[in-house]
Amino acid sequence: MTLDGPAPARLYQQVFRHWRDAIASGRLPAGARLPAVRELAARHNVSLTTARRVVEELHAGGWIETRPRLGLFVAQPRQPGYPSPAGQPAPVSIATLALRLFEALRDPAIAPFGSPFIDPAWLDIAGVNDHLRRAVRKFSPARGLTDLPPGHDALRQQIVRRALHHGFRLQQDELLITCGAMEALNLALKSVARPGAVVAVESPAFYGMLYAIEANGMQALEIRTDPRTGLDVDDLAQALGRHRIAACMLMPSLQNPLGAIMPAAARARLLALAGEHDFAIIEDDAYRELLPPGGSPPPLKHHDSDGRVLYCGTFAKAFSPAPRIGWLAAGRHTETALLHKLMNTLSTSIPNQMAVASYLRDSRPDRRLARLRDTLASNRARLADTVRRHFPAGSEVNTPAGGFFLWVTLPPECDTLAHYPKALAAGVSFVPGALFSPSGRFGHCLRLNAGFALDEPVLARLAEVGRQLQAG
Amino acid sequence: MTLDGPAPARLYQQVFRHWRDAIASGRLPAGARLPAVRELAARHNVSLTTARRVVEELHAGGWIETRPRLGLFVAQPRQPGYPSPAGQPAPVSIATLALRLFEALRDPAIAPFGSPFIDPAWLDIAGVNDHLRRAVRKFSPARGLTDLPPGHDALRQQIVRRALHHGFRLQQDELLITCGAMEALNLALKSVARPGAVVAVESPAFYGMLYAIEANGMQALEIRTDPRTGLDVDDLAQALGRHRIAACMLMPSLQNPLGAIMPAAARARLLALAGEHDFAIIEDDAYRELLPPGGSPPPLKHHDSDGRVLYCGTFAKAFSPAPRIGWLAAGRHTETALLHKLMNTLSTSIPNQMAVASYLRDSRPDRRLARLRDTLASNRARLADTVRRHFPAGSEVNTPAGGFFLWVTLPPECDTLAHYPKALAAGVSFVPGALFSPSGRFGHCLRLNAGFALDEPVLARLAEVGRQLQAG
Repeated sequence: MTLDGPAPARLYQQVFRHWRDAIASGRLPAGARLPAVRELAARHNVSLTTARRVVEELHAGGWIETRPRLGLFVAQPRQPGYPSPAGQPAPVSIATLALRLFEALRDPAIAPFGSPFIDPAWLDIAGVNDHLRRAVRKFSPARGLTDLPPGHDALRQQIVRRALHHGFRLQQDELLITCGAMEALNLALKSVARPGAVVAVESPAFYGMLYAIEANGMQALEIRTDPRTGLDVDDLAQALGRHRIAACMLMPSLQNPLGAIMPAAARARLLALAGEHDFAIIEDDAYRELLPPGGSPPPLKHHDSDGRVLYCGTFAKAFSPAPRIGWLAAGRHTETALLHKLMNTLSTSIPNQMAVASYLRDSRPDRRLARLRDTLASNRARLADTVRRHFPAGSEVNTPAGGFFLWVTLPPECDTLAHYPKALAAGVSFVPGALFSPSGRFGHCLRLNAGFALDEPVLARLAEVGRQLQAG
Repeated sequence: MTLDGPAPARLYQQVFRHWRDAIASGRLPAGARLPAVRELAARHNVSLTTARRVVEELHAGGWIETRPRLGLFVAQPRQPGYPSPAGQPAPVSIATLALRLFEALRDPAIAPFGSPFIDPAWLDIAGVNDHLRRAVRKFSPARGLTDLPPGHDALRQQIVRRALHHGFRLQQDELLITCGAMEALNLALKSVARPGAVVAVESPAFYGMLYAIEANGMQALEIRTDPRTGLDVDDLAQALGRHRIAACMLMPSLQNPLGAIMPAAARARLLALAGEHDFAIIEDDAYRELLPPGGSPPPLKHHDSDGRVLYCGTFAKAFSPAPRIGWLAAGRHTETALLHKLMNTLSTSIPNQMAVASYLRDSRPDRRLARLRDTLASNRARLADTVRRHFPAGSEVNTPAGGFFLWVTLPPECDTLAHYPKALAAGVSFVPGALFSPSGRFGHCLRLNAGFALDEPVLARLAEVGRQLQAG
């Protein structure tokens, strides 16, 4: 491998990534020997200084270890399954992976274990559409001005009311209606961080967050995240000693992909830390309706005394994705977020806003939601059972308290991304773990969707993929 | 003015901007004397090197001139009314101005001369809403997957058909449906330029473009733009000798705010230049339907042989803003744009896409559009007449061939931004010229909306504002 004279920083990064990716993907397993610094420099045609820097960074990230008088070796992951992240902010590159994911969703022959969507038949699309028909009849052109961002007042009022139903407070005057939760996340991020800024994220993190960070030219700093209790506030506190972060972007309730729920005490510590180190918190609460009221501590936003929490929610996950309605409560960043909204998509379709407002006002969704939660719980259990019985020995599957995602940790030598085409050929999609980390961790993990009809033939197909993974 | 030790580049920029803004705003009129380099250094507490660099840059931008043995003086604008831009890429700062603009729109007591919207009563909102009601009835949940970005196929087909009606070609397979034209512009920009990149823009330019450039951490390079023939390709060619640009973002037909239409020959030269210097072209054709078929040369996209043109269109300006439907034909950047779409707003409301598709298929909008164009022409004439009769002597107003914007150039000493609060108090909004340039040019200009009912009392209010401006 010869690299033709790019700028020094880029050169070092190329060589670093070459080795990091080889390790993260499992091509270089733990215990494999690396070339010494001098050999590394020769092989990549770089200076000794550059080669030394690569080795230092591989060390700092926990990718390699030095055995005295023996040389450099690939390190064991520090905590199998949920390794400590590299500790360095990294530009993320999630693009191609995400596109492949969405391509597979269109093919009805592929069982959508890789889908980010719940089966629409389990939502209330027809009920919401009734309200959309009525909204269209009532729509007056003047609404085009009065309902410009921040948005339709009746909808903002209903969102506050729905939050109260779940036991937490939102302020109507900081609520901004968005084109779905993904826009809310993007606006939040742009409102608090500039290109080049460091944003702390969960590890693993929702790839949409990682992509937003990448697209805005920011750096993602991965923070250790526990499959049950979520973001590790101690790890974040340590990282704050080394990095100035602009924001921490996280999902404290039903984290995607882990399903973790942060305990109240950890939430309080995170808020205190944010005050002390003056960073913003971007809280994605997309799955709140998939927990019963009281099924999780209130959002961070509920305790946000100084307006530093930017809270993102959505109507899509439990009611209907058709109107594409999300929201952002941006605290002290409300005006900045409003401007970003105007300049990102100008406005959110007003008949759609009116429809969601009247739906939330008039419908009684709670019985249906309770049934939906039961269905999802039973599906998660059946899916986890299939994984336990048919995936390679040593695989672990988490057991979240809600939602429709399962996270499977396979033995470290499994490369789920490399295996993905074979799974597609067997009629099964999943989300390779590589998508959930900019540093290439979780290459041996995958996310499964339990939010659709899991009949025996579909589970049999997944079992077959498990056996393929076993065979390697 | 003392500056407390920021980094050198920032320091130089602060001092540069201090003087540039003073000149651009008219506080320092042409012919005013500037302090010499040594005095400048002492006054701002900076080094002689820094002071010299400030003077060099003010020179390069055409802001000042040296008169031998006399010193530094504020230069005459090179071409009064449409001055040559600074010649340097500049980070833009449009934020606060844009927010003020949108605030005024909500107040029904203020005549919306500052509005970016045509009167919705002149569009076909009811007709489009009929189709939305039908679309909601026909919507099946499976569409949630098949119509994921790039979008609903029938809509993409109808957009191609409508383009053919206007005499130009679009490829259905490069069409991506967006949440309005503003999202299309943002996706286009992100697809071809990274933070820090230089993007050539018209001068004056649509503030939405300038804001997108600012929000993405890029630099706007202003290119001289003629009120009748649009972007000056010679000026762009010269700028290419000094700057590597990633993209040129422009409106070749009914440019906002000038209403300019680029002649076919200039379009061909721009495309050739883009090929030669390998930059992308982002073409905003939002006002196409406000010209009759043949009323403008075809879009640049029509002649785009190598996929470097990213074409943005919208349903809002001539049909209905309610469904929030725009589109982007991204040429060779189609896959990148698709990914940015997924990660910006995930998807565009599918019932809304279906409604626009069936509206375009079944309705016969051309008679209404012809009437609308006539109404706008008559309104532009009446508004221009009011300006000519009541605005300060020396004011000029352009006479575009279509659309609903007029651009007024007042005498150089007028500061339309400073005057804006007085106009609001008189019940009139307008868009201060400062919004259309990152370098503070056009502080003596303003944009007026002619797209609403211009009765005598409303025109009398505008006349009053003209007299206020006269008084200064």
